[in-house]
Amino acid sequence: MDKSSINNALKQADKAFKTYRFTTGKQRATFLKAIGEEIMALGDALIETTSRETNLPTARLVGERGRTILQLTQFANFVEEGSWVDAIIDTAQPDRQPLPKVDIRKMNVPLGTVAVFGSSNFPFAYSTAGGDTASALATGCPVIVKGHPAHAETSRMVASAILKAAKRTGMPEGVFAHIEGGIEEGVYVVKHPTVKAVGFTGSLVGGKALFDIANKRKVPIPVFAEMGSTNPVFLFENALTLRGSAMATQLADSATLGVGQFCTKPGLMIGVDSPALDGFINNLRNNMAAKTAAPLLHQGIANNFKKGLQNIENQHITEFKTFAKSDKPIDGVPSMGITTGQAFLKNKALHQEVFGPFALVIKCKDKAEMKRVADSLEGQLTSSLMAEPEDIKKNKDLLAIISDKCGRFILNGVPTGVEVTDAMQHGGPYPASTDSRYSSVSVDAVYRWVRPLSYQSFSNDILPNELKNENPLSILRRVNGVLTKEKV
Amino acid sequence: MDKSSINNALKQADKAFKTYRFTTGKQRATFLKAIGEEIMALGDALIETTSRETNLPTARLVGERGRTILQLTQFANFVEEGSWVDAIIDTAQPDRQPLPKVDIRKMNVPLGTVAVFGSSNFPFAYSTAGGDTASALATGCPVIVKGHPAHAETSRMVASAILKAAKRTGMPEGVFAHIEGGIEEGVYVVKHPTVKAVGFTGSLVGGKALFDIANKRKVPIPVFAEMGSTNPVFLFENALTLRGSAMATQLADSATLGVGQFCTKPGLMIGVDSPALDGFINNLRNNMAAKTAAPLLHQGIANNFKKGLQNIENQHITEFKTFAKSDKPIDGVPSMGITTGQAFLKNKALHQEVFGPFALVIKCKDKAEMKRVADSLEGQLTSSLMAEPEDIKKNKDLLAIISDKCGRFILNGVPTGVEVTDAMQHGGPYPASTDSRYSSVSVDAVYRWVRPLSYQSFSNDILPNELKNENPLSILRRVNGVLTKEKV
Repeated sequence: MDKSSINNALKQADKAFKTYRFTTGKQRATFLKAIGEEIMALGDALIETTSRETNLPTARLVGERGRTILQLTQFANFVEEGSWVDAIIDTAQPDRQPLPKVDIRKMNVPLGTVAVFGSSNFPFAYSTAGGDTASALATGCPVIVKGHPAHAETSRMVASAILKAAKRTGMPEGVFAHIEGGIEEGVYVVKHPTVKAVGFTGSLVGGKALFDIANKRKVPIPVFAEMGSTNPVFLFENALTLRGSAMATQLADSATLGVGQFCTKPGLMIGVDSPALDGFINNLRNNMAAKTAAPLLHQGIANNFKKGLQNIENQHITEFKTFAKSDKPIDGVPSMGITTGQAFLKNKALHQEVFGPFALVIKCKDKAEMKRVADSLEGQLTSSLMAEPEDIKKNKDLLAIISDKCGRFILNGVPTGVEVTDAMQHGGPYPASTDSRYSSVSVDAVYRWVRPLSYQSFSNDILPNELKNENPLSILRRVNGVLTKEKV
Repeated sequence: MDKSSINNALKQADKAFKTYRFTTGKQRATFLKAIGEEIMALGDALIETTSRETNLPTARLVGERGRTILQLTQFANFVEEGSWVDAIIDTAQPDRQPLPKVDIRKMNVPLGTVAVFGSSNFPFAYSTAGGDTASALATGCPVIVKGHPAHAETSRMVASAILKAAKRTGMPEGVFAHIEGGIEEGVYVVKHPTVKAVGFTGSLVGGKALFDIANKRKVPIPVFAEMGSTNPVFLFENALTLRGSAMATQLADSATLGVGQFCTKPGLMIGVDSPALDGFINNLRNNMAAKTAAPLLHQGIANNFKKGLQNIENQHITEFKTFAKSDKPIDGVPSMGITTGQAFLKNKALHQEVFGPFALVIKCKDKAEMKRVADSLEGQLTSSLMAEPEDIKKNKDLLAIISDKCGRFILNGVPTGVEVTDAMQHGGPYPASTDSRYSSVSVDAVYRWVRPLSYQSFSNDILPNELKNENPLSILRRVNGVLTKEKV
């Protein structure tokens, strides 16, 4: 896409911000819900296009479309209710000694244009009208999306739905723009002075590159990049003994779900060498062997998956197996590896995420080594424990190490299946994300795109509605230290 | 300071984190309040030492010590009450179709060791036991402070008070450490893998350098640097006519308060050329001329102030005046400049903060030029309006531009005097701070040092107290979308 079109889109977005930031939560909620309606109005044609572009089955895409609309609705309801601005009011105390106290009131305001880079593995829910776009639009930030080349037509169709919804609900021109292109166009957008923040879902290489570019700008801007992880699962003694076989089934299913193309795929399974662990491994092997090969999202992903497997095989680990052979170059073949704690500790190549249906089992010689393995891990989106109460009791130190490394800590469950709910944290210590203090899932995702602004000694009539004495929006506010919906 | 001592301090801090993170809010509150007591116990010796090291008058230092203890108390109360962890609980729905919903609970947890670089202009309130240290300790993060060389003995004394308080209240060894040194030691600390975040108050050059280093680490870490600003004051027509003279007195006082050494000093005063503006300027000149020279914090600041003034003078602006001559090289002489909107727009040298008792008046030829001047400004901690209701009504667009540039927006007041209150925002768009989404003043400052962690399907007995069904801490939580202190 030529630079002048991109410039124009960014100029329009910046202009739109001047009015869009002053729209009410209710107006933006109407807009977000209209986006959902327009996406539904694209009908089966959208699902068919996306399935063709991504090799994802129809049922999965119908589900993901539903999730996307749920997200739009949740963000809409969140900003329509209005308390999300975290209004804080401290009234004046003119008689305070030794100095009078002035009236100060604070609320969240939008940053400005947000650039969104969607993922290939969630063509709806983390792409053009996905969580980043929805959360940014919800706060009053215009959005410019660079469509993912792997589902270009899908992105165009969804963009047209957003533009239609914007028009229908009277949003300012330029509030949303869709641009196309590759790395060059993406870099150009992130460097552009009118862009105030970046949302990204994808690979570590891509996310880190944008993060570095954003930090090197004359005016650095925040980047929230969710960059995946290996999602370690810790297998404890009593759990292995009691239900190793069921765990193997559960984990093989999770590791191969969606052909292993989830950022929360359990990629590492860590236990202490024992007959129970061997039993688990046998069961895992049998389960993985029963899985079928299936086409990956696109040839680039397939090539990377093959490279990733090759890289693991090259490390001469204890065992390396691929199952369900396929001669289609696009296919992901279910695969697994087994290595020792010692080898894992020595070899950083084994720590890398292999995006696709692969899992690596790490056999530690004892609990002390398992602790060292946990300590050696990088930041993770999730960490899971397969543990009985007795295991929990005996491993407090190890549990603390594990929880320090992740954004979501799971007991006796699998990491795939990210519930879209208020209490969800999707992010985590670097390199799972560029800033562990934010989440890209749940309504809290809006806080990536806003900043607090204090108003000092403003007269009531010119304060934003959120901060006026009479509380016309009936939102929850902290007034002189007390949470209340009452007027001041 | 030698590297092995620093390494040892960092190792101890990392070790302390393992237990300190699990202390209760009540325990940390006791610790913070004990720090205040131990600082008071240092008595007049502290005030005398600091006054000698900083040239700040005793009365100001007594006041600042009070503010420091107020901050410690506020953070103590905030974490003792406990709701600051923003607990969110979404309970399971085993019967949900098509898939059961799992139990997910989220709360804020501390990041780990925080490195603090205090300022020279607030030897107590933004230094060794200042807002950054207090907010980090409050959350459960160990702190390592690099003492400011300009008040080394003060920093040592305050550090000894913190260590005494830590011991007295049973905090783990290493929870706080004080190191000494210059740039090399500071850089070493920020690069150290066990350091998880940085708090800085000072110059743009210093803050930006640490920000860049932190971003280039193998594992980047967040840096909150508050780096000052020019704090523009916009003088509107009706206000100028009605009370130009009073405004001149008010602003001259504010610009020279503490020898102009506040990050919120009003450094730019912007109006449209008119007889009323000329009247204001005459009054400002007279007021500035009546101010006395006084010693700056240290010779480095004095040299920089002289360089800053020289730089302004070199721009051949309309008028440049220094008043109250002094032959002491440490003294800051009250000074002012007058320039045109046109010159300001062309010349970025005029946009730079001059730290000390100096203000620059910008005469715009008309409202359109004033708007361009506002638009040309960098991010600011504060922006002030001197305006009557009629001015507000007529300048909505300009007001929106101004508010977009600042963290605190003031009507008919001066920016100096940062109230320590919940609604205060101290920070702002870059280069006022490295991340406009956070504040270094008010209890919200704790959110710089924490991240959300979700617990999925944890049994009640092993959940942190903040997330247990019975709500043993009686904190406010969002349970299935409803804010409540009730048990689940």
